Amino acid sequence: MQPNPAPSKPRPADNTTNGLYMQDVLSVRQFTPQLLEYVFSVADEMRTLVERFGSADLLQGKIMANLFYEPSTRTSSSFMAAMQRLGGQVIPINSVQYSSVAKGESLADTVRTLECYADVIVLRHYEVGAAAEAARWASKPIINAGDGVGEHPTQALLDAYTIVRELGRMEGLTVAMVGDLRFGRTVHSLTRLLLSRNIAFRFVSPRLLRMPEEIRDEVTEAGDTYTEHEDIHDVIEEVDVLYVTRVQKERFTDLEEYEKVKDFYIITPELLKRAKTEMIVMHPFPRVGEIAYEVDVDPRAAYFRQMQNGLYIRMALLAAVLGRA
Amino acid sequence: MQPNPAPSKPRPADNTTNGLYMQDVLSVRQFTPQLLEYVFSVADEMRTLVERFGSADLLQGKIMANLFYEPSTRTSSSFMAAMQRLGGQVIPINSVQYSSVAKGESLADTVRTLECYADVIVLRHYEVGAAAEAARWASKPIINAGDGVGEHPTQALLDAYTIVRELGRMEGLTVAMVGDLRFGRTVHSLTRLLLSRNIAFRFVSPRLLRMPEEIRDEVTEAGDTYTEHEDIHDVIEEVDVLYVTRVQKERFTDLEEYEKVKDFYIITPELLKRAKTEMIVMHPFPRVGEIAYEVDVDPRAAYFRQMQNGLYIRMALLAAVLGRA
Amino acid sequence: MQPNPAPSKPRPADNTTNGLYMQDVLSVRQFTPQLLEYVFSVADEMRTLVERFGSADLLQGKIMANLFYEPSTRTSSSFMAAMQRLGGQVIPINSVQYSSVAKGESLADTVRTLECYADVIVLRHYEVGAAAEAARWASKPIINAGDGVGEHPTQALLDAYTIVRELGRMEGLTVAMVGDLRFGRTVHSLTRLLLSRNIAFRFVSPRLLRMPEEIRDEVTEAGDTYTEHEDIHDVIEEVDVLYVTRVQKERFTDLEEYEKVKDFYIITPELLKRAKTEMIVMHPFPRVGEIAYEVDVDPRAAYFRQMQNGLYIRMALLAAVLGRA
Repeated sequence: MQPNPAPSKPRPADNTTNGLYMQDVLSVRQFTPQLLEYVFSVADEMRTLVERFGSADLLQGKIMANLFYEPSTRTSSSFMAAMQRLGGQVIPINSVQYSSVAKGESLADTVRTLECYADVIVLRHYEVGAAAEAARWASKPIINAGDGVGEHPTQALLDAYTIVRELGRMEGLTVAMVGDLRFGRTVHSLTRLLLSRNIAFRFVSPRLLRMPEEIRDEVTEAGDTYTEHEDIHDVIEEVDVLYVTRVQKERFTDLEEYEKVKDFYIITPELLKRAKTEMIVMHPFPRVGEIAYEVDVDPRAAYFRQMQNGLYIRMALLAAVLGRA
Repeated sequence: MQPNPAPSKPRPADNTTNGLYMQDVLSVRQFTPQLLEYVFSVADEMRTLVERFGSADLLQGKIMANLFYEPSTRTSSSFMAAMQRLGGQVIPINSVQYSSVAKGESLADTVRTLECYADVIVLRHYEVGAAAEAARWASKPIINAGDGVGEHPTQALLDAYTIVRELGRMEGLTVAMVGDLRFGRTVHSLTRLLLSRNIAFRFVSPRLLRMPEEIRDEVTEAGDTYTEHEDIHDVIEEVDVLYVTRVQKERFTDLEEYEKVKDFYIITPELLKRAKTEMIVMHPFPRVGEIAYEVDVDPRAAYFRQMQNGLYIRMALLAAVLGRA
Repeated sequence: MQPNPAPSKPRPADNTTNGLYMQDVLSVRQFTPQLLEYVFSVADEMRTLVERFGSADLLQGKIMANLFYEPSTRTSSSFMAAMQRLGGQVIPINSVQYSSVAKGESLADTVRTLECYADVIVLRHYEVGAAAEAARWASKPIINAGDGVGEHPTQALLDAYTIVRELGRMEGLTVAMVGDLRFGRTVHSLTRLLLSRNIAFRFVSPRLLRMPEEIRDEVTEAGDTYTEHEDIHDVIEEVDVLYVTRVQKERFTDLEEYEKVKDFYIITPELLKRAKTEMIVMHPFPRVGEIAYEVDVDPRAAYFRQMQNGLYIRMALLAAVLGRA
């Protein structure tokens, strides 16, 4: 017994300014180079707007439902701020675990309920595919804010945007992904978004936590290249982008193995002395020890600027799907 | 030791446009036919306003405290959206269980605190009579968003509004209430609101979960009629309104009894083949299996429109109690 | 390994209207008599504004992050309302216990994340010194909404403001602090804020819960005086301000001791018959029995007006730190 899908999302013929109007944002795979360029240019406008005026009234009278089935203060706050800086309002739904929507109601019914009240739904869910499932039934736009180990497209977009704004381009770079590459949703999505740009990937991880074969194959098929490493010291001198994620102790059954490798993935001022002058260190945050606090004052530490870019990208997406970009 | 009640709510003599200005919304019993007509006409205006402009600024600068002692995502979100679409702001208080207001503070003190900050208080509580108790002490309007097995007047109002807007009238209809009629706050309130309109009620429930005698007596006294049934198939052909609620397994001590009757209360496309062309299926939601998803595409399935009407009714009530209707 | 502090907060040279612009509000010790006078005069303006118009748009487009590591409905709601009545928006972060910010992320990283999205951060934390620690790393203003048994400066400010607005002055008063004076953050902060004003303090508490020696010494050093008492009846006739706090049963190891003294700290209409005509009863709330409800109708019961003043003081502080006062 399955619900019947919503009619395809309404989309007036006369709106040709953007390809996201009234569309869902579910996966990085949606983002063609042209669409990416468009989103980045809108994000640039949002940056200007925030820096000059703090906020705007582009989405005044619009309501965003922030539907979080698992907590994520950072992502949740970033989307709230994005909506509010555009003059819109937010219905925060953070405690799904306690509420009736958790008591057996289907996700389909929940989103169809919320779209009676809101103009756009931001969904964070613990299950892969939840956002796509929600989008099947909703007639209002769904934005995927992370679905289990699946996708987190807005994170990948803000990461790519950061690379372009920091280094001036995405093409021809040497990009190291560091840490837990097996379970890291973030590095999967970003890798996919960067494909076909003549990028030399450096996958640096414990053997146990290698980048999945499926994604390595995609890299090769796209005409990009990759090498694999266990120690960040192998690649530090050549990288343009050092994208760091956490290596969780819990992933290891053999704690000796963990002790042996853990320092291979910690970024310190000493390590960065060997890096290029023109490179950037990124991290999706939160960090718990994998980047020393002393690195923060290094101009190459881009992670707080990266976080700020999250605001601009999410503003751009909200404005785009609601037809005000 | 009892707190002293608030002075009666202030009500300027020159405001004669509506009978709800600065009043509490506690019970369906408040709603005379004239007042109901007034609320429905304001709800119509709200619908027009939302459809044309998305939102308005009627309540700009006003603040609503959304005080929920038990979680209810649907009702809470609906009230938030209603306030926000009128340009107002919301203080959401959803986690009362963790906070000081739960640590022995009287409800009287809590509402007197919140009215220092807010212009109107929406209260959901697990105890019968909580809203009336709150209203005794508050000088700002209290809107009852459900008090235990007591009342849920805004649900009943949106239900009645849906009937009128879908079928053109409330008078002379055949209305079936289906499911748990004993503990179902919703069906109690709606039945009371529909009284004295020459309605033929059909109460369809397991014997264990019959409509309480008190309410059956009120029906008779009001000059309406009712019959009782165990199986929805008995009445499906004659009903104008099929109001479905859930039959919870937990209500049964004898699970064999549950198994025997549970299918009597499930709405399927097959069942609806026997129903009138001009009838509606309603449900207060969430549903968990009692209406098949396949029914959703049937134009007689009114439950999502019903939910949408909840927004308009709550906008109308907020605008009315704050003197902007 | 410690994070590197933020550069000192930016502060344009041409803004000379207030000493709080882009500053943190961490402690009552910041408030010189001049600054206090300034904040109170802005609070007066806020009162006028709320009474006449309900709200203003001074902070339109500004965002406040309401970061609460422990629940406090009252303080949280008061800050939210203050921001909203000034036209600003709020990101409420109430469930820190469930979120990533609780999973090992440093407070420094959390506030540096939030200042990417928000213009001002209100912080409630269970640890002494948390607000100062946050302020070290943030470049946006931090407002301390209570840090453990440390400070709660906005409470002290609203208390002092209430005294001035109710009695016309702070100088030369007889002020009784009643209840748990040992662990009561509120009475510590207020005592400090009132120093050097020729005040006769009356510290009324169980022997176990005396005002700490450190604060008693500060009183003496400031040229004010104090006496200590176990029974409120000793001082009721002479006090201008009766500041009541709760005596928690849990503080006592000897329950007989508790039973013996508990009634010494309960305010009743009978007790107040012996008090001056021109005095006020204050309480930071919530109360659980230490002030009889019958007292509420006494015009000397100032605690609900005190709560209302909390709104004006917090509006004043927000407007001041964001440069709109």
